[in-house]
Amino acid sequence: MPKLSQRSYDMPASAIRKLVPYAEAAKKRGVKVYHLNIGQPDIKTPEHALDAIRNIDTKVIEYSHSAGIESYRRGLAKYYQNINIDVDYSDILVTAGGSEALYFAMMVAFNPGDEIIIPEPFYTNYNSFTMLAGVNVVPITSKIEDGFALPKIKDFEEKITDRTRGILICNPSNPTGGMYEEEELKQLRDFAIKHDLFIIADEVYREFVYDGRKHVSVMHLEGIEDRTILIDSTSKRYSECGSRMGCLVSKNKEFTKNALKFGQARLSPPYFGQILGEASLSTPKEYFEEVYNEYVERRNFLIAELNKIEGVYTPMPKGAFYTIAKLPIDDCDKFCQWMLEEFNYENQTVMMAPASGFYATKGSGKDQVRIAYVLKKEDLANAVKALEAGLKEYKRTQM
Amino acid sequence: MPKLSQRSYDMPASAIRKLVPYAEAAKKRGVKVYHLNIGQPDIKTPEHALDAIRNIDTKVIEYSHSAGIESYRRGLAKYYQNINIDVDYSDILVTAGGSEALYFAMMVAFNPGDEIIIPEPFYTNYNSFTMLAGVNVVPITSKIEDGFALPKIKDFEEKITDRTRGILICNPSNPTGGMYEEEELKQLRDFAIKHDLFIIADEVYREFVYDGRKHVSVMHLEGIEDRTILIDSTSKRYSECGSRMGCLVSKNKEFTKNALKFGQARLSPPYFGQILGEASLSTPKEYFEEVYNEYVERRNFLIAELNKIEGVYTPMPKGAFYTIAKLPIDDCDKFCQWMLEEFNYENQTVMMAPASGFYATKGSGKDQVRIAYVLKKEDLANAVKALEAGLKEYKRTQM
Repeated sequence: MPKLSQRSYDMPASAIRKLVPYAEAAKKRGVKVYHLNIGQPDIKTPEHALDAIRNIDTKVIEYSHSAGIESYRRGLAKYYQNINIDVDYSDILVTAGGSEALYFAMMVAFNPGDEIIIPEPFYTNYNSFTMLAGVNVVPITSKIEDGFALPKIKDFEEKITDRTRGILICNPSNPTGGMYEEEELKQLRDFAIKHDLFIIADEVYREFVYDGRKHVSVMHLEGIEDRTILIDSTSKRYSECGSRMGCLVSKNKEFTKNALKFGQARLSPPYFGQILGEASLSTPKEYFEEVYNEYVERRNFLIAELNKIEGVYTPMPKGAFYTIAKLPIDDCDKFCQWMLEEFNYENQTVMMAPASGFYATKGSGKDQVRIAYVLKKEDLANAVKALEAGLKEYKRTQM
Repeated sequence: MPKLSQRSYDMPASAIRKLVPYAEAAKKRGVKVYHLNIGQPDIKTPEHALDAIRNIDTKVIEYSHSAGIESYRRGLAKYYQNINIDVDYSDILVTAGGSEALYFAMMVAFNPGDEIIIPEPFYTNYNSFTMLAGVNVVPITSKIEDGFALPKIKDFEEKITDRTRGILICNPSNPTGGMYEEEELKQLRDFAIKHDLFIIADEVYREFVYDGRKHVSVMHLEGIEDRTILIDSTSKRYSECGSRMGCLVSKNKEFTKNALKFGQARLSPPYFGQILGEASLSTPKEYFEEVYNEYVERRNFLIAELNKIEGVYTPMPKGAFYTIAKLPIDDCDKFCQWMLEEFNYENQTVMMAPASGFYATKGSGKDQVRIAYVLKKEDLANAVKALEAGLKEYKRTQM
């Protein structure tokens, strides 16, 4: 057999997937598993958007334009204009999910060997796309006791080398639920200008911002239009993760022009996802209000319940639908597997994401897990009960 | 403005796209443009497959499995078994079009700096995906006077270096319409074994094989199961290019395992494309017969008409729906642009793909164009008339 590439061995396998066989085995034993491990919401996709799919009368499913269907791009531009992001449809490249947008951004903005600074903990797949682009991740640790606020600019300064070319942030953040304030973003802007860096912002959770906060986009910051790249996706906004529909937005025309070449190589983004995405743009306010209220209720309940457990601490998330919780455990990978493999409480258990996978600094986050509040309140209640019982039993028998 | 990556400048822009503004300008002048430049068929997508999309009653469009929906993969395995390709569903990774399958194959099989041999002329986007993977293309020229048959194995032998790791073929071929016979493929197999190479075969035109020929897949060849990688797509088979639905197939378990990690990085293939693809698997024979007859009639008509024009030669395509024609011209890029920019015959003209873009050897194919017979006969007739008149006028005024 011919040898496979080194990169195919180096490519990280999904950490959560490693737990999947244990979850499946648990289910086979008749144990109910609460999936708080993933960002797959149980929220319904807007019905009128699904109707647009059901009413398709196209006879030939043709390639669309490599940058996306024009009417969809024009609709997206309007969506952005409504939230005070001043872009033209020609600044938008429609992609197969936020994933492809991120991949294109890495390939176009950076050369192999370049470094980008990313506050950790961060979304695991950033590792995959930086690796594909040959870009080195320089992590900068944000702390649970600060509610995962943006690290101080002086900490950023310490990370600068002659290969530093960009900053990648997720705001609001998966996995932390943290959100950056306008003042923090302005400091980041000044830092980017000073060191001639790109700022890439993954803002796919923009609509999930709580307690009367106002989301500030990197696209709102003045004076860095030529160095700002927005990663977006319809996945979470309209609960249509499976349609793989995202976009890449920048006012840097040279960037967009070169990014389109990557779009042309894969011909076009998925057709049906664009139809669903375009219809979703006219989702009524009530949908978001309902979803918003649902998440706030889940969040408030979950955070209160978690913090009642002895030795557990989790900050109040400002956005998205995740929280990172510090648990009284030695090793989150071991604990999460044990919860599935060996434990159940009244025939129920919880699947969580070990937080170690969200840190690039080796050994960090070993006592943390990410919990997604994507299930309804009564399920969350049962999950927390199982977690509490699990922590006791784990301490007694495993530590 | 921060500098963009070198690769984003090196990345080839679509050669055909360069002609698009000229085609659009021609249309604005009221000239009818026949698009024989692209592989976008006018054939209808199977109606029952579109019905599967129209009947979707899913409430939440969730991520699917990173390797694809299991029932779809099982359906695909059956499709392959029916054409004597013995694969299990676990040998199949569902991808966003053949494009993504090709990209994954390059990334998993090869290291940067590795060389792969590709018979030219070849599909332009192979350049993009090899470039993304840092793989060097070593072209080996097939000739129009041989009907673009597989070059002799001794020609392949001459291309071998210590970095040669694979062979990529397209069979039946876009852009040539050529098809490799069993005997040629067996020679290629022996060559691959001798030099320990992967054979990657793009067989997306498998169903378009004419004159009673039988398509032989690389997956039919015995003794190279661990070095064979199949690139496939539903785009042409069911005329559903826009749905972006392909797959990567190999019996090399290590290959599939590593490829899945790339699949996990982008989370999942597009949901709706999978629904359409799965429903398409039960497309009745009559659909293919009708499509087949349509293409045969178009092909026979086009080839006969082209060869009647003075100084034009094109071989009879054995498969797919393209042909490469040699024209009495000095420069196909210049000629194709001129046909759109300056010429019309009774207010009609033709858009063709300059063949220069299909050759990796500089200066090759300058007197050739690729013509896709994706339009109905009466349009082809008008297109050929315009081409004939254009060639006369071009010779008189431009050469």
